[in-house]
Amino acid sequence: MSTTVSPLAPAGTPELPPVAGVRLATASAGIRYEGRTDVLLALFEKGTTVAGVLTRSKCPSAPVEWCKVRLKAGKARALVVNAGNANAFTGSKGVAAVKHTATLAAEASGCKPNEVFLASTGVIGEPLNTDAIARVMRGAALAARPENWKAAARAIMTTDTFPKVATATAMIGSVQVRINGIAKGSGMIAPDMATMLAFVFTDAPVAASALQALLKREVVDTFNAVTVDGDTSTSDTLLLFATGAAAARGAPVIKSAGDKNLIDFARALHVVLADLSEQIARDGEGARKLVRVHIKGAVSKSSARKIALSIANSLLVKTAIAGEDANWGRVVMAVGKAGEPADRDKLSIFFGEIRVAHAGARDPAYDEKKVSVYMKRDVIDLTVDLRLGKATDRVLTCDLTKEYVAINGDYRS
Amino acid sequence: MSTTVSPLAPAGTPELPPVAGVRLATASAGIRYEGRTDVLLALFEKGTTVAGVLTRSKCPSAPVEWCKVRLKAGKARALVVNAGNANAFTGSKGVAAVKHTATLAAEASGCKPNEVFLASTGVIGEPLNTDAIARVMRGAALAARPENWKAAARAIMTTDTFPKVATATAMIGSVQVRINGIAKGSGMIAPDMATMLAFVFTDAPVAASALQALLKREVVDTFNAVTVDGDTSTSDTLLLFATGAAAARGAPVIKSAGDKNLIDFARALHVVLADLSEQIARDGEGARKLVRVHIKGAVSKSSARKIALSIANSLLVKTAIAGEDANWGRVVMAVGKAGEPADRDKLSIFFGEIRVAHAGARDPAYDEKKVSVYMKRDVIDLTVDLRLGKATDRVLTCDLTKEYVAINGDYRS
Repeated sequence: MSTTVSPLAPAGTPELPPVAGVRLATASAGIRYEGRTDVLLALFEKGTTVAGVLTRSKCPSAPVEWCKVRLKAGKARALVVNAGNANAFTGSKGVAAVKHTATLAAEASGCKPNEVFLASTGVIGEPLNTDAIARVMRGAALAARPENWKAAARAIMTTDTFPKVATATAMIGSVQVRINGIAKGSGMIAPDMATMLAFVFTDAPVAASALQALLKREVVDTFNAVTVDGDTSTSDTLLLFATGAAAARGAPVIKSAGDKNLIDFARALHVVLADLSEQIARDGEGARKLVRVHIKGAVSKSSARKIALSIANSLLVKTAIAGEDANWGRVVMAVGKAGEPADRDKLSIFFGEIRVAHAGARDPAYDEKKVSVYMKRDVIDLTVDLRLGKATDRVLTCDLTKEYVAINGDYRS
Repeated sequence: MSTTVSPLAPAGTPELPPVAGVRLATASAGIRYEGRTDVLLALFEKGTTVAGVLTRSKCPSAPVEWCKVRLKAGKARALVVNAGNANAFTGSKGVAAVKHTATLAAEASGCKPNEVFLASTGVIGEPLNTDAIARVMRGAALAARPENWKAAARAIMTTDTFPKVATATAMIGSVQVRINGIAKGSGMIAPDMATMLAFVFTDAPVAASALQALLKREVVDTFNAVTVDGDTSTSDTLLLFATGAAAARGAPVIKSAGDKNLIDFARALHVVLADLSEQIARDGEGARKLVRVHIKGAVSKSSARKIALSIANSLLVKTAIAGEDANWGRVVMAVGKAGEPADRDKLSIFFGEIRVAHAGARDPAYDEKKVSVYMKRDVIDLTVDLRLGKATDRVLTCDLTKEYVAINGDYRS
């Protein structure tokens, strides 16, 4: 955990209201850090369904492989997350560690190991000390209660400079349900121990298959539209748990992602996912500016996404923004290297509302002073209008500063 | 031009011997820089053939589009290169500027504009001042002579910290031919004005189609296997000119890339291209270490290349190496995110000869002290053995330092 909070952090971290059917506890197992919590245990009522989106890495961590298998059944009674050790590239020891942790949590909470979901974040390639987790598990299960959201968000932090929480409500039929989320991020697996983890909890009664379809759809423009350094972790995990407790209050049980009763819930879920994922960009390692890359006029959504990511992952664009330089030449470069349809003589580039390039050349009307003032902002909107089609996209990133290199390169010295 | 030479620069820059049929001149046109040369004019004897490889950017510069068309005829009598302005994203003015420059060179040297090849490197989006080039063109044509190779390499530099030259000889039949090359690089288009340009000259008599086939083959493991920051310039240009002057000394004229008389020439061309491209990696902006990423045991060459580039372009790997940290966890991450066949439990990772990870976990025999000593070297060999197939690859890159960010982000302040 950094001692300096990102200048892009929200003003404060609210304590979230409870989600019926969810109890939380945190503990200090001393896996890597001293003087802080590093284990989160979440317990769910019977009947809780779960959906998840996991890293596409071909070398995933042991807990990711564990979750992948358990997601097929779609049932959850507990979640155990530890910070400080990713249990990644740990071979057969890693597989044994996830089994052991799941068994510990199952025993402490009275469920089956297959109903326990796991996530680990931290150093890669070191065996996870499950004895440390064993020592705190029973106490955590006894201490679990409906509050503790802020503490939960704190317990899963690694290089994060602030805890990340979000909440929203939605109507399912005439019943209000709640959605709470916590996340951690910052770099991808840097320095040795950052990755993207997010956990979302709701009391809505939604079947696992519908929950999975919904989550898959809603990550496209939220978690999948955020990039800090273009690196994909071995451990990226997003899990969505639905306890169904709102059914007791009269909420209809949703069986299909196409159910109209899910429309307002989908909106609220999007809000929570968008909020959490933006907080991750705002806590990008060394970030001083949040950058929103907007693409207009693309031939398709996927083409727009590729161009947006090409810009958002360009070192030259990111360092220019760190230098408060509206360097649209580098934006042209990044558009060109995406390999997607683009016509140099048609495209326009805007920083904020200021059009800096147009019709294949610098915009003659562009006022350098106005742009310089704009570039001093915390949040930069960079828009490319390709003028080829109607598709749009938006991706979030942050600038690339010397602090990023320091965080990721200097920590040995 | 930087005042501090890269610590990875060669000990010195040799003056190259002449290439029969090539004359060179440089001039100070004052396009952007003061007190240095910024224009190179190369003149070729009648009958010179040309081959080229150009940026794949969808937003290429005006000179790239000019060359693309002229390469089809495969005939060259002159090359004009300017530094300080890339003539990229300059719209119809850019097109007019290349036409005007080609006409100026044709008039000064007595050839047709379509036989003039052009390359520009420097700031994007500013109109190129062809009046400045006009003022020096005639004088340059008169001054052109067979020496001047070092001066030529200097005239095309932007953020480069040293001039890049290479030379080799080859036998075609019983006749010795020469191959000289010059290049500039460093970042891709950074800071506003770096890009990769390389020009290779030979007196071998090779038909344009054979030259093109040969060049295309030889760039795969040379220029296309080097990455500094993963950004592709609007202007990347590699041209190979063959004057054919060695035919007068009895060298057989080569019509096909499959001709056995070309085998030794292909070897020598590879040496020159490999040398120049390695110099570009050694002059990567802010680079303190040259990194050679070796892949073994991949299922195919293209799979090996994708994994190698995923590692070589990973910010987390590059910053770790800058920090002299043998962070194989990040290498695993980069292998995993490449999306290519890889089995976590089979792969091995080596820094130099030291195996740090093996069979899905940290190598228990690995000596942290030995690795720490190794990581202090200037040149780091990073090898991943996937143990899946027989394909191999090698890619060159450099580390990512705070100086890179400073060069690319701070120059406004």
